[in-house]
Amino acid sequence: MDQFMQAAIDEARLGRSEGGIPIGSVLVRNGEIVAKGHNKRVQELNPIKHGEMDCLNNAGRQRSYRDTVIYSTLMPCYMCAGTIVQFKIPKVIVGESRTFDGAREFMESHGVEVIDLDLQECVDMMNEFIEAEPVLWNEDIMEL
Amino acid sequence: MDQFMQAAIDEARLGRSEGGIPIGSVLVRNGEIVAKGHNKRVQELNPIKHGEMDCLNNAGRQRSYRDTVIYSTLMPCYMCAGTIVQFKIPKVIVGESRTFDGAREFMESHGVEVIDLDLQECVDMMNEFIEAEPVLWNEDIMEL
Repeated sequence: MDQFMQAAIDEARLGRSEGGIPIGSVLVRNGEIVAKGHNKRVQELNPIKHGEMDCLNNAGRQRSYRDTVIYSTLMPCYMCAGTIVQFKIPKVIVGESRTFDGAREFMESHGVEVIDLDLQECVDMMNEFIEAEPVLWNEDIMEL
Repeated sequence: MDQFMQAAIDEARLGRSEGGIPIGSVLVRNGEIVAKGHNKRVQELNPIKHGEMDCLNNAGRQRSYRDTVIYSTLMPCYMCAGTIVQFKIPKVIVGESRTFDGAREFMESHGVEVIDLDLQECVDMMNEFIEAEPVLWNEDIMEL
C-alpha cells in the first residue's frame, strides 16, 4: 500500500470512529505530507467539510498547488473536484469510485490527472458505512 | 437594490474592513436569509473560505437546497460553482462578472440558473481591491 493512501485511509477510519463519514484525504508535495483531513459533516455540522476540503483547509494558504498531489479514499464530488480544478492541483489519486462515481470526467476535462487505485479496502469501508447510515450518506451527497 | 444582494454587498464590505477580500454571499429560502458569509482567506488563513463557501458553512446542515437561491457579489469560481452543483442549489444571482468571469457555463451546463445583475457598485468594489492588493487577489484565484 502506498504510504499516502494509507494515511488517507487512516484519516477516514478516524472520522468513522468519531461517528462521521469515513472519507480521508492527504495533500503531498515532494514526497511529504503537507496536510491531512477527513469528512467532518457530522462532527462539525458542516456540509462543506468533505475529506478533501478539510485537508485543503488544514493546509492553510499555499502559494501554489502545481507541485502537489491530492489523495482521497473516494472519487471527489463536484465540490471537491471544482476545488481541485480551481486550485490547479494537477494530480488526484483515489482509493475507489465503485461506491460513488464522482466527477472524474469534469476533472480530466480540465487537465487533472486522475488515478483510481480501486482498492477493495476502500470499497469495503464505504459499503459498511452506507449500509449502517444510509440517510447520512445521502445527505452528504445531496441525494435526499 | 434587491435586499438580498444588498446583504451580500454588506458582507463583502465587512470582509474588506477586516483586511480581507471583498466578496460576500447570502443563502435565501422563501424570501428569508438562511445564512450570510464572506471571503475569509486572510482572516482565517483559509483558502476554502470563499464568500459562498463561508455562507454555506454558516448555514450548517440543510436537508435540501432545492428551494434556495444563493447570492454572491461576484461570479462563482470552480470551487464555489462545483459546490452549487453538488448541493443542487438551483439558482445563483451574482453582482457582477466583469472583474472575474468564473464558472458560469459549467453551472449552466448542470442546469443551474445564473443571473448576473452587472452592478457597477460590485465592479467598483472589486476594482478598488484588486488595485490595492493584486498579489492577494491572484493568490485567491490561483493565478500566481
